[in-house]
Amino acid sequence: MSEVVWCVPNFSEGRRQEVIDAIVGEIKSVEGVKFLDAKPDVDHNRVVVSYVGPRAAVGEAAFRACRKASELIDLTRHKGEHPRMGATDVVPFVPVTDVTMDECVELSKEVGRRIGEVLGIPVFLYERSATRPERENLADIRKGEFEGLRERIGTDPLMRPDFGPDRIHPTAGATVVGARPPLVAFNVNLGTSDINVAKNIARAVRHQTGGFRYVKALGFELKDRGIVQVSMNLVDYTRSPVFRVFEAVKREAARYGVGVVGSEIVGLVPLEAIVGTADWYLQLEGFKDEQVLERRIWG
Amino acid sequence: MSEVVWCVPNFSEGRRQEVIDAIVGEIKSVEGVKFLDAKPDVDHNRVVVSYVGPRAAVGEAAFRACRKASELIDLTRHKGEHPRMGATDVVPFVPVTDVTMDECVELSKEVGRRIGEVLGIPVFLYERSATRPERENLADIRKGEFEGLRERIGTDPLMRPDFGPDRIHPTAGATVVGARPPLVAFNVNLGTSDINVAKNIARAVRHQTGGFRYVKALGFELKDRGIVQVSMNLVDYTRSPVFRVFEAVKREAARYGVGVVGSEIVGLVPLEAIVGTADWYLQLEGFKDEQVLERRIWG
Repeated sequence: MSEVVWCVPNFSEGRRQEVIDAIVGEIKSVEGVKFLDAKPDVDHNRVVVSYVGPRAAVGEAAFRACRKASELIDLTRHKGEHPRMGATDVVPFVPVTDVTMDECVELSKEVGRRIGEVLGIPVFLYERSATRPERENLADIRKGEFEGLRERIGTDPLMRPDFGPDRIHPTAGATVVGARPPLVAFNVNLGTSDINVAKNIARAVRHQTGGFRYVKALGFELKDRGIVQVSMNLVDYTRSPVFRVFEAVKREAARYGVGVVGSEIVGLVPLEAIVGTADWYLQLEGFKDEQVLERRIWG
Repeated sequence: MSEVVWCVPNFSEGRRQEVIDAIVGEIKSVEGVKFLDAKPDVDHNRVVVSYVGPRAAVGEAAFRACRKASELIDLTRHKGEHPRMGATDVVPFVPVTDVTMDECVELSKEVGRRIGEVLGIPVFLYERSATRPERENLADIRKGEFEGLRERIGTDPLMRPDFGPDRIHPTAGATVVGARPPLVAFNVNLGTSDINVAKNIARAVRHQTGGFRYVKALGFELKDRGIVQVSMNLVDYTRSPVFRVFEAVKREAARYGVGVVGSEIVGLVPLEAIVGTADWYLQLEGFKDEQVLERRIWG
């Protein structure tokens, strides 16, 4: 099994394909990196890029992509529905295999320092790399976006960057860098059309209102199906795991006489989260990820 | 995702390491093959070898290994606790990724024909490759072992081989070849010391006595822990899946007021069986194996 860090940088360009290609080209130019995908969103005018590799290669690719984005993206001319503060808006490093969270925090600091010093872009560390609690959440750092930050940085000591100059980069803005666990997007569908049931359950299980520490949750209507959904982000499935959250939602729904009709995992999910779920329900003793045949074949 | 066939041949040598090394060397000599392990058993005087690769490479490696085993192993001088009928005793091909069971059946026939025609060893097709129902089970074909088969083959029309000569190979015996699904070894531990509970549950869930079609089961005592175990082989987890068998065992145990204290999966298990378990318990809608991050990274 070789070292795998997953990097999912977001760039503020979702329309000009040649710019996206140039940024992706920088990532692919680094030996040892495996490019997974780039998902542009025209309305958001933003692209989410996904690639993996060992630490050194992943860090180098992040720096090169950030440099290219700062050359090609001008935030003073950028408009999109999604909040943003930088040409390279956010660079999360996610430990996957044979690498610790602490090592990814170190990696994020090395890359952040380089972006700050070499490119002259102010860098804020977030999530597990945050240097103060109020910088753990991306939304808190990004409040006011590029235009707001341009005013506050250099005057508001609370907005002093972790690396780079204490002033906004005139066209590339500022960049958020950090290490975080993989996020699992997990939705549970309920056999009722009563939105209040979904909202009550969301309130019961989410951290903000007293629920599981690493769960964000909202209640939604699925109008075409005539049912409602508890839509969740599990921001640390190792501590607030899928199976436990699912069982809690199911139990809360039963309190209203409502059943769970299904659930969904959106996008990618680490093998560990799936193995952990099977492990818990089957009450397995001593099961190891290495017993999964494909892990032996591919790892 | 590239084509992966898993091959788990058994050779009648568990003591002379130089013979095992020579056989493994033949497998490793084929480009595209990934050797996983070789587990010799001194008492059984037998080695189980495990390797993967695309069809052509896996078939070539099986042939070369079989040829080498026929040169180095003399069944007239072989003794061991495990039943056996050939220097290469059995060659199972297991579809894992991007290959169908039918394609593995074809592969087994190609390899079987070659072993029969080139090496002059009689070959019997078994499991999904069997040409008649009474040859599906390895134990049925191997009854009487090398010594018994030597008498029957050539006189008993029921023992006419699928490939190769209608007489035993004087030193290499006969070989069984075929395609089969992966086998999952799954044990459930019960919170009682009453062996009858385990035996009754084994009878309830196994095919032989009226249970699930692809389940073999026995009741055992785990004396050091003071509990009992239902020990099972799931010979086709796609049709008699882990979660359904587990829930049935749990329900049967409850009928005696006994709880499940744990379970174990012994050895390797396909990702699909683990994903299928998480999928069922979480009531997932539309989940695909491709959503497992590591599959994207390694596949």
